[in-house]
Amino acid sequence: MHVLCLDLEGVLVPEIWIEFAKVTGIEELKRTTRDEPDYAKLMNYRINILKKENLKLKDIQKVISGMNPLPGAKEFIQEAKSLLQVIILSDTFTEFAHPLMEQLGFPTIFCNSLKIDSDNFISGFSLRQEDGKTKAVKALKSINLKVMASGDSYNDLGMIKVADSGALFRTTDKIKADFPDIPAYTEYSQLIEHIKRFKTEF
Amino acid sequence: MHVLCLDLEGVLVPEIWIEFAKVTGIEELKRTTRDEPDYAKLMNYRINILKKENLKLKDIQKVISGMNPLPGAKEFIQEAKSLLQVIILSDTFTEFAHPLMEQLGFPTIFCNSLKIDSDNFISGFSLRQEDGKTKAVKALKSINLKVMASGDSYNDLGMIKVADSGALFRTTDKIKADFPDIPAYTEYSQLIEHIKRFKTEF
Repeated sequence: MHVLCLDLEGVLVPEIWIEFAKVTGIEELKRTTRDEPDYAKLMNYRINILKKENLKLKDIQKVISGMNPLPGAKEFIQEAKSLLQVIILSDTFTEFAHPLMEQLGFPTIFCNSLKIDSDNFISGFSLRQEDGKTKAVKALKSINLKVMASGDSYNDLGMIKVADSGALFRTTDKIKADFPDIPAYTEYSQLIEHIKRFKTEF
Repeated sequence: MHVLCLDLEGVLVPEIWIEFAKVTGIEELKRTTRDEPDYAKLMNYRINILKKENLKLKDIQKVISGMNPLPGAKEFIQEAKSLLQVIILSDTFTEFAHPLMEQLGFPTIFCNSLKIDSDNFISGFSLRQEDGKTKAVKALKSINLKVMASGDSYNDLGMIKVADSGALFRTTDKIKADFPDIPAYTEYSQLIEHIKRFKTEF
């Protein structure tokens, strides 16, 4: 049996925080791990801004509901699901992903989750585990599934390396140059072709 | 994050071999593990009958395409997928499940696979692993997912026991009597209620 493990943001949907910052016009939310490499610090900074702006989870979800998957993503997921099993592995939060997952027909996703207080404000977050994408691929391989992995960024390299087959998708020139042995695609049709080869080779 | 591991035959779709025997009128294919407890022997017996009847994989898939999921199964899967992650764990073969999975919107499934020869006849089968359902639940728990499991039969008891929460669904009176501590349901609405409790308790 063949499984495709796929990154979410940048591959199927836009970067959620950046899109959210754009839509709401809250400039401070454009800060990313490139500006603040300490992820816990960055998340607490974001949570404080949301509280200051009086934005509850339901307000945030409403904004995210107005976002769309990337053009062609829904059709790609439908075709991929007819060819093999698809599991999305993401570092985002299930509560943020939910409105976008709905638009994609609720494919299976493993990600992190938020802590929500009784007033519906985000009060914290919990990571499922460190390096969760790589560990998920290893766990799937351990039960004799053949795994292909694809994503766009540094946090996808671990799962791509441990998978039976891997590909970068819409990544940066720097990552492409640093990892010339990993195929790098920009179109969903190229991923579909890779899936078809993967199914015959493994 | 919460995952529901769900049996397929008897829970979401009819027993495929029995339904296939009924539709084609091939009485010999009604033989099950109750008549022949050696599974490999039973499968080879079935494969020989299919060859004798000149039934290729594509003919079998055509018959299965005419079958339907159980009434309410599609709506149940849609609702369940909006509440948590759903992975179907089945001892059937991916090639048989495919036409029924399509009708259910291609939820994620881990199952076994067939060997198909160059003339499109079934030439053998490969089990993903022994006791694959239980091992899949253990693997999902090992990456910090909370798992609920449900199924109808003896081969589901292992995964139900290792899951964080479990329930029998449309099982036999004998299994209910032998395992009085496991909740036993007959309606999808009861499974949905169990899922909602599971999400707040774990």
